[in-house]
Amino acid sequence: MIIDGKKVSQEIREKIKARLAQHPDINIRLVTISVGDDPASRVYVGMQHRTAGAAGLHPEHIELAGDISQQQLEEKIEQLAQDDKTHGMILQLPLPDHLDKDAALAKIPPIKDIDGQTDVNMGRLLQGRKQLVPCTPLGVMRLIEAYNVETSGKTAVVVGRSAVVGLPQFLLLAEKGVDATVTVAHSRTRDLAGLCRSADILVSAIGSPAMITEEYIKPGAMVFDVGVSETPSGIQGDVDFDAVSKIAGGVTPMPGGTGPVTVACLLENTLLAAQLQNALPA
Amino acid sequence: MIIDGKKVSQEIREKIKARLAQHPDINIRLVTISVGDDPASRVYVGMQHRTAGAAGLHPEHIELAGDISQQQLEEKIEQLAQDDKTHGMILQLPLPDHLDKDAALAKIPPIKDIDGQTDVNMGRLLQGRKQLVPCTPLGVMRLIEAYNVETSGKTAVVVGRSAVVGLPQFLLLAEKGVDATVTVAHSRTRDLAGLCRSADILVSAIGSPAMITEEYIKPGAMVFDVGVSETPSGIQGDVDFDAVSKIAGGVTPMPGGTGPVTVACLLENTLLAAQLQNALPA
Repeated sequence: MIIDGKKVSQEIREKIKARLAQHPDINIRLVTISVGDDPASRVYVGMQHRTAGAAGLHPEHIELAGDISQQQLEEKIEQLAQDDKTHGMILQLPLPDHLDKDAALAKIPPIKDIDGQTDVNMGRLLQGRKQLVPCTPLGVMRLIEAYNVETSGKTAVVVGRSAVVGLPQFLLLAEKGVDATVTVAHSRTRDLAGLCRSADILVSAIGSPAMITEEYIKPGAMVFDVGVSETPSGIQGDVDFDAVSKIAGGVTPMPGGTGPVTVACLLENTLLAAQLQNALPA
Repeated sequence: MIIDGKKVSQEIREKIKARLAQHPDINIRLVTISVGDDPASRVYVGMQHRTAGAAGLHPEHIELAGDISQQQLEEKIEQLAQDDKTHGMILQLPLPDHLDKDAALAKIPPIKDIDGQTDVNMGRLLQGRKQLVPCTPLGVMRLIEAYNVETSGKTAVVVGRSAVVGLPQFLLLAEKGVDATVTVAHSRTRDLAGLCRSADILVSAIGSPAMITEEYIKPGAMVFDVGVSETPSGIQGDVDFDAVSKIAGGVTPMPGGTGPVTVACLLENTLLAAQLQNALPA
């Protein structure tokens, strides 16, 4: 079975659109900030903005010069932080080498941090008081919900231990009410295939094209592919889709799997941020 | 083999004492705050303070009335937060029911948060920029280091998913450079004994007296008991020490295992806090 990320994304976006349509007087503004002109990032931001606009949000993009100083970048972020017409902020990463990502992110107020990247939002997630959580692992949870995947007591393996995907994915799968028994695997893990074969739920987030083949899959497992690699033949996920889909219970394709739901979760988070700022009724 | 927490604790405290002896002019102050008079908490704080004092630190205890208001509690915390003679702060938990723990903890500056309980310190740990981390899981890492336990690529199981022990323990074992492959188990985990039997490193933090018996243990495994239960026959850990020590490679006793190292790590964190506040040379 193909896990249809486009469909689930559309359902989430329709709900957002319907909710916003009830408040035609409220303008919810989402600002993306990029430093320098990276063509790939520009394509991605453009897609985010079209999706946000179609759902009734008001996206804006600020492209800062590639040679901007740390102080100038932080001043710009602080300006948006204080602007009560800006409800959601995203700083496009990676930044050029001369800039300090952590110091810049620290200037984003947690309640405007719609990709859940700040220390406070990560800490809240760990402490069972999550508010804004990273969109990619949140999107995987939305797919799990949409497909009624049983999680309680099930074995989940997350491949990859990044702070953006792997670790928050672990926390979301292990939290009370979801209750999976979760293992995080990484480059030092021995017998990765055997470990993955124990998983009822497998999330791969490493960026190794088509590395996850049928010998990594338990029959009937639900497989979520979050890895993205650029290859000569186009975008490729971590999962060898054709091979894995013969044995898995469900697999996300790439593209059309976790990506569209990530974007829908960004919009969902923007609404939550507006709500936390008392700019939108609950 | 008994994993001797008392010995490792003493080694850490000797180092701290020697380091502080080089700076006789620097007074590092650690303040514990408790609300109401809980006899058990008083015993624990008394022990913390004797240990801190013996190592050359300056502990102080503030016992607030059990019926203090949230605002009064927060004012007291803020006062200590602003006092540059106070380097480390601990709020004894649990608080009486009428008080909001999270709001109170949020008033502790992250650089004075010597038990690593604030959102910012949890978020830093998750993001690979740890500073002050919770003392109990840090203590387990100190035992692992002291006994030269191999961790890279090894299988670790943490039983319990609390924000105070289980989840930070997971992050410390899975982080780069430690590189264990870690699973977090909890009350919904199926076949807990079987899962634990796969562990080269087992940390139990659930508070179920003597629940971990020999059928939970892989021969040669290193077992760290963090659970504490009060039983009619005294303090009892999660691990059935006599049974488990016949098959494990090493086991922490209770008492005398992870507890003394937790206290040593509290002192270690106080020095780190003072350093972060530029009150002590690195």
